[in-house]
Amino acid sequence: MDREKALKQKAFQKKGFDGFLVFNGINQLYLAGVQGTSCLLIPKKGEGTVYVYSVNYEQARAEGRGFRIELVKRNENLMAKIAAQVKSFKMKKLAVDTLSYESCRSLAKELRGKTKLKVQGNLIWDLRKVKDGEEIKLIRRACELTSIGMKVAYEAIRPGIKEIEVAAEIEYAMRKKGSWGTSFETIVASGARSAFPHGGCLDKKIRPGELVVVDIGARYMHYCGDMTRTISAGKPTAKQKKLFEIVKQAQEKAYQTIRPKARAKDVDAAARKIITTAGYGEYFCHGLGHGVGLEVHEPPTLNGESKDRLGIGNIVTNEPGMYLTGFGGIRIEDSVLVQKGQAEKLTVGPYSLEAE
Amino acid sequence: MDREKALKQKAFQKKGFDGFLVFNGINQLYLAGVQGTSCLLIPKKGEGTVYVYSVNYEQARAEGRGFRIELVKRNENLMAKIAAQVKSFKMKKLAVDTLSYESCRSLAKELRGKTKLKVQGNLIWDLRKVKDGEEIKLIRRACELTSIGMKVAYEAIRPGIKEIEVAAEIEYAMRKKGSWGTSFETIVASGARSAFPHGGCLDKKIRPGELVVVDIGARYMHYCGDMTRTISAGKPTAKQKKLFEIVKQAQEKAYQTIRPKARAKDVDAAARKIITTAGYGEYFCHGLGHGVGLEVHEPPTLNGESKDRLGIGNIVTNEPGMYLTGFGGIRIEDSVLVQKGQAEKLTVGPYSLEAE
Repeated sequence: MDREKALKQKAFQKKGFDGFLVFNGINQLYLAGVQGTSCLLIPKKGEGTVYVYSVNYEQARAEGRGFRIELVKRNENLMAKIAAQVKSFKMKKLAVDTLSYESCRSLAKELRGKTKLKVQGNLIWDLRKVKDGEEIKLIRRACELTSIGMKVAYEAIRPGIKEIEVAAEIEYAMRKKGSWGTSFETIVASGARSAFPHGGCLDKKIRPGELVVVDIGARYMHYCGDMTRTISAGKPTAKQKKLFEIVKQAQEKAYQTIRPKARAKDVDAAARKIITTAGYGEYFCHGLGHGVGLEVHEPPTLNGESKDRLGIGNIVTNEPGMYLTGFGGIRIEDSVLVQKGQAEKLTVGPYSLEAE
Repeated sequence: MDREKALKQKAFQKKGFDGFLVFNGINQLYLAGVQGTSCLLIPKKGEGTVYVYSVNYEQARAEGRGFRIELVKRNENLMAKIAAQVKSFKMKKLAVDTLSYESCRSLAKELRGKTKLKVQGNLIWDLRKVKDGEEIKLIRRACELTSIGMKVAYEAIRPGIKEIEVAAEIEYAMRKKGSWGTSFETIVASGARSAFPHGGCLDKKIRPGELVVVDIGARYMHYCGDMTRTISAGKPTAKQKKLFEIVKQAQEKAYQTIRPKARAKDVDAAARKIITTAGYGEYFCHGLGHGVGLEVHEPPTLNGESKDRLGIGNIVTNEPGMYLTGFGGIRIEDSVLVQKGQAEKLTVGPYSLEAE
């Protein structure tokens, strides 16, 4: 399998490990194609093993790819079982993607000091952040479904409707077109709560003149879409329009800088400069964006402190915002595919406070 | 605040800690009423601190309760900031709820060996698993909304409809009645995939005669509901009816044993005995249930290895099942409140393969 091979190359040939222990469930899904499993052990040579409890055993057998599926009985000690396998492979230097402090202690105890453990989660992130053709296809579809949801949001939002009713319409439309669910909790935050970047959505009526931040994502075949628009309930005021134009310009400017090898901090800076120059820099209280894939927040990170560089196959969000306590918030977000030349917007919707 | 007081009593008076560091986001929501924060430090004496990055700062200030809200700037080192506060409180023995191996190392480095860290997540679980009056009210509502969704499932399921279309109808109905979203990814698994306990829901048409496992949860004000029914697409066969009756009896039997001080393993055994006696023990491949609250899987755990005892205020699922590869699966689940005398079912729906 390509992903496994790529990891082996990174971890074993370049870094000298002779095994990789994958505990993160999404990493297991990425590498072995299965969910609900407990651990994946990849040896330098020989067949890897997916450890799974009985509840998900048959599903792992049916859906997993490229690894031996091993049943963990309820009364077995998972760490002891893994340690025995590590020992049989005579592994001396073992990479681990992530581990809680407690699990690490319990595993180290079973390994009795004969195998050195090192946390190397970034090696898998380095793979996951570069999407392959199949992944791009799935995220493209997730983003199409998300755009369908956003169209419904523009149609639904009007004074008098409740935030959760808007969410109901959005999610229903995405589901009917084939969505597997949502990438994250739908945000339909109106009025003063639109100034909270993660305002959620409440049993609250949208009032005339309020701004409504709609941040949504459809999920398709495990992959996430992510998109935000800000919609006015009724005719926008002059101030709302003015602020909206600033965020829109910032987003467009950042989009123009998204290309292979661009420094993520420079893309963030391109948007931030527009908002700061307009006098609202302090109200842009978050980074510009993040990678999107099996999870909705992945590397690379686009903010002022990021050390990441963009590369072909990254899919990242471009989401500048401005949040004025009391007045409300404005955010515009697209999911964008980094490719040779001009980046491609995978989410599509109007750049407007009202339906076009 | 009651929850904070209770934790202080457990951790400081009984265990001799002089500070508690809470890193888990749901624990922070439970104790401080806020989401999206990074850490909560509770000292033995004096005011506690919630650490939050700028993106969620204003929301934390508006919604948090009982703690000082401290802004963490993007270029600040969170662990160094926490360590400085720990030092100012002269803490020698510090409890932590949960921590990755890497974060633990980074925090320990900042503490320079002057404060001893100990993982004590169970102390917070001991509080969280006993729901207070307010929590019971919210979970009761989440379960009512879930039951509304299940009613819709019985109405929607028929040969020819797709699994995701059924999910669309369920989630739409729950949202319209006030749901904040779902507790977990909706399961509408039909035919052979109904034999996977976590079969999800696909873009697949339900065929005549198939079993459909519907496992859903509405979320209300952060709290989860959880409920499963198994529905037949059309008239059930004699074998489907026979197996259904066994699971139904097992669930009823377990329900009768749910009371304060009951051992969780005995409740599991009550259901398992019925299924085993009927000759299907090997097909009941998971534990009987789990606690439900801010998360959909919480302590106490109801399975054969559990050391938990039930207590007043626990809300647990009772969900025996039987999964025959190729044939399909049957699961019946309610969320149940443990109280003095007879436990109360918070989810309500028919115990039947067809709408009643």
